[in-house]
Amino acid sequence: MSDSRKHVVIVGGGFGGLWATRALASAEVRITLIDRRNHHLFQPLLYQVATAGLSAPDIAAPLRHILRKQKNVEVRLGEVTGIAADARQVRLADGDVIDYDYLLLASGATHAYFGHDEWADDAPGLKTLDDALHIRRRVLLAFERAEAAETEEERSAWLHFAVVGGGPTGVELAGTLAEISRKTLRREFRRIDPAQARVRLIEAGPRVLANFPESLSEKARAQLQRLGVEVATGTPVAAIDARGYQLGAEFVPARTVLWAAGVAASPLGALLDAPRDRAGRVLVEPDLSVPGHPEIFVAGDLASVKQANGQPVPGVAPGAKQMGAYVASAIRARLGRRAVEPFRYVDFGNLATIGRRAAVVDLRGFKFSGFIAWVFWLAAHVFFLIGFRNRLIVMLNWSWAYFTYQRHARIIFGTGEPARTDAPVPPP
Amino acid sequence: MSDSRKHVVIVGGGFGGLWATRALASAEVRITLIDRRNHHLFQPLLYQVATAGLSAPDIAAPLRHILRKQKNVEVRLGEVTGIAADARQVRLADGDVIDYDYLLLASGATHAYFGHDEWADDAPGLKTLDDALHIRRRVLLAFERAEAAETEEERSAWLHFAVVGGGPTGVELAGTLAEISRKTLRREFRRIDPAQARVRLIEAGPRVLANFPESLSEKARAQLQRLGVEVATGTPVAAIDARGYQLGAEFVPARTVLWAAGVAASPLGALLDAPRDRAGRVLVEPDLSVPGHPEIFVAGDLASVKQANGQPVPGVAPGAKQMGAYVASAIRARLGRRAVEPFRYVDFGNLATIGRRAAVVDLRGFKFSGFIAWVFWLAAHVFFLIGFRNRLIVMLNWSWAYFTYQRHARIIFGTGEPARTDAPVPPP
Repeated sequence: MSDSRKHVVIVGGGFGGLWATRALASAEVRITLIDRRNHHLFQPLLYQVATAGLSAPDIAAPLRHILRKQKNVEVRLGEVTGIAADARQVRLADGDVIDYDYLLLASGATHAYFGHDEWADDAPGLKTLDDALHIRRRVLLAFERAEAAETEEERSAWLHFAVVGGGPTGVELAGTLAEISRKTLRREFRRIDPAQARVRLIEAGPRVLANFPESLSEKARAQLQRLGVEVATGTPVAAIDARGYQLGAEFVPARTVLWAAGVAASPLGALLDAPRDRAGRVLVEPDLSVPGHPEIFVAGDLASVKQANGQPVPGVAPGAKQMGAYVASAIRARLGRRAVEPFRYVDFGNLATIGRRAAVVDLRGFKFSGFIAWVFWLAAHVFFLIGFRNRLIVMLNWSWAYFTYQRHARIIFGTGEPARTDAPVPPP
Repeated sequence: MSDSRKHVVIVGGGFGGLWATRALASAEVRITLIDRRNHHLFQPLLYQVATAGLSAPDIAAPLRHILRKQKNVEVRLGEVTGIAADARQVRLADGDVIDYDYLLLASGATHAYFGHDEWADDAPGLKTLDDALHIRRRVLLAFERAEAAETEEERSAWLHFAVVGGGPTGVELAGTLAEISRKTLRREFRRIDPAQARVRLIEAGPRVLANFPESLSEKARAQLQRLGVEVATGTPVAAIDARGYQLGAEFVPARTVLWAAGVAASPLGALLDAPRDRAGRVLVEPDLSVPGHPEIFVAGDLASVKQANGQPVPGVAPGAKQMGAYVASAIRARLGRRAVEPFRYVDFGNLATIGRRAAVVDLRGFKFSGFIAWVFWLAAHVFFLIGFRNRLIVMLNWSWAYFTYQRHARIIFGTGEPARTDAPVPPP
């Protein structure tokens, strides 16, 4: 159909891409939103899916459903495999070529192993729902294997859970694993005592939650230890394999190592002919456009942007949302031939949960921790979750879990293999 | 540890195995419950997971959790690969050998393709949570592919959903698919109209729900048609491949074919040296024991048992539960050297749902259908679901879905592949 409206192509339905899309609802443009997955994911709660506290659909919503009433958007499930900036085209894996007038790349970040990709199988990371289900399976199976183990050595290797990386995700995972072993699984096993599990959080730097003020890092460490987590700082993990990990001079047998240490920008950044930082983030102009291509923007974790104080904008949801909304306003300004102010990140503060009744909050210098911080964290996360139904269900699940210590999603599935008919059974 | 109690090994944590386990709670035995999966699954609602109305953990509960307070049970995650009846041992895939005094095989059924195993990939069946997620992905992706299709032919093949088999599962799937295409997805697509999807239920026999009285089959057909399902009876599907299916002389292009036609007993039955019927079910004695082995019992879908009227006990949850409880009482009787009455199936009736406000119920000749039957069906299923939390969540989800037509679990995931770091991106 002929259409005189400018075509905005947005790659990625995360916080950056979705907020840009919504902010263009009343603009005289047509939008194509492309994502490899059919859903927007509320990543801040992904660790809850990995630790069996929430079901996958509780923290995700189909992009089509979110945008069903926004008439100027078409949602396309697809994977971008090429960008021809001069021709203003993106290419999809299925061969389709899509023309654009404006392009927003907001494909986020993935986990990175700092040149040790061989660790990926033995130390899974957490970025997608499939990652979360994979970690859930690994953790639940570890307790099963410990129960069936024949030697004390085997048993203790299955009961050693190491989380590499002391940022918010590592802290959340370690705190929740400690709760699972000490509370949730109580009385369910006959040969092992799950409470004997060792949960160890390993941070190469001097403290956990390095982005927080030092006093809150200290609080976080104390709260982790109270929950039963061993915190090891100051030494990087030197090697990981299926049997365990190397920390300093010691090789520690551990069957479950989770990776929460490294983040790298989405590989789509490499499709642009633009300068990138060491993590692969695109070094954008003050208006988030790509140098030499004012019609291409980058937002969210894929963009390397500095705040006024010289610090980088952190890779958190508010940063991505603000960038997405800003790019929408920049496109509107271009359409109206108006100038735009440079992007300015507004820092509302920083919060991280540690586990049951434990969290730290830093609201521009107003710091608190413990139970109050935890309630604040809960409220903020329920408030920002997309969809009234999801809010309701998550609150219900959390209330349930709080009073019973139970985690309802302790179901092992998602191997991707449908059950086979007539599965062969070897003779005895 | 030395233990003078007899050892009962129960294979399968479905309705048969779990009900037997519970009924032995106060018996002077120790029990080992072995299952390949860590959860009991409420199979009657599995089609709801396949059609994105419920999350997987809503209809499953960890066996360990269900049985945590029953001190005489040990739950073992494992796959039985051999039975040495003379030595009274079962062997597991991990090499472990477990001695028993009494053995109950209750490993259920799987889907069968009547000698056409080559259809399995193109016509997935529904028995496990992984099957359900697989079907969910297929169905949701079909609409996405239709939206991206370049030709009218492709589009209509992606929008043709065929369900093979007019039993309760086939009827439920077809009814729900019609609702999804006509209501749930409304306004979400820009190029296709999901309501144009063809949903076809194919039954080789003369009528759907052949286990019900003929008048209810007629009612079911009328209700299906009102929901938008085409019902094709009297002709079997002759071939299925990735492009479509052959029905009589006609090859029908269809990208989504679901299999609800055939059931075969679990392959574990073949490990016994015992007579079996054509579907692989073990022909048991009147006390559900295996001929020549009074210490081995079979219950649930794996057992071939006749009712007093000569009809086979149907493969439904109440049948399996009754057999499980009966085997427990038979074992107690053996321990006390008492005789047992033969197993007698008590038929409480038969119910099947068809879709929104449509169901048929036959309570020993007291027949009704439509809205009242649907409410009855809902109430019965919520009542029998294990776990108060699951009941609450399922009711909440159903109420939500009823008023909004929404299905919250329309999230594509569970490919089993964790996201890879540094995924290669081919050049444009």
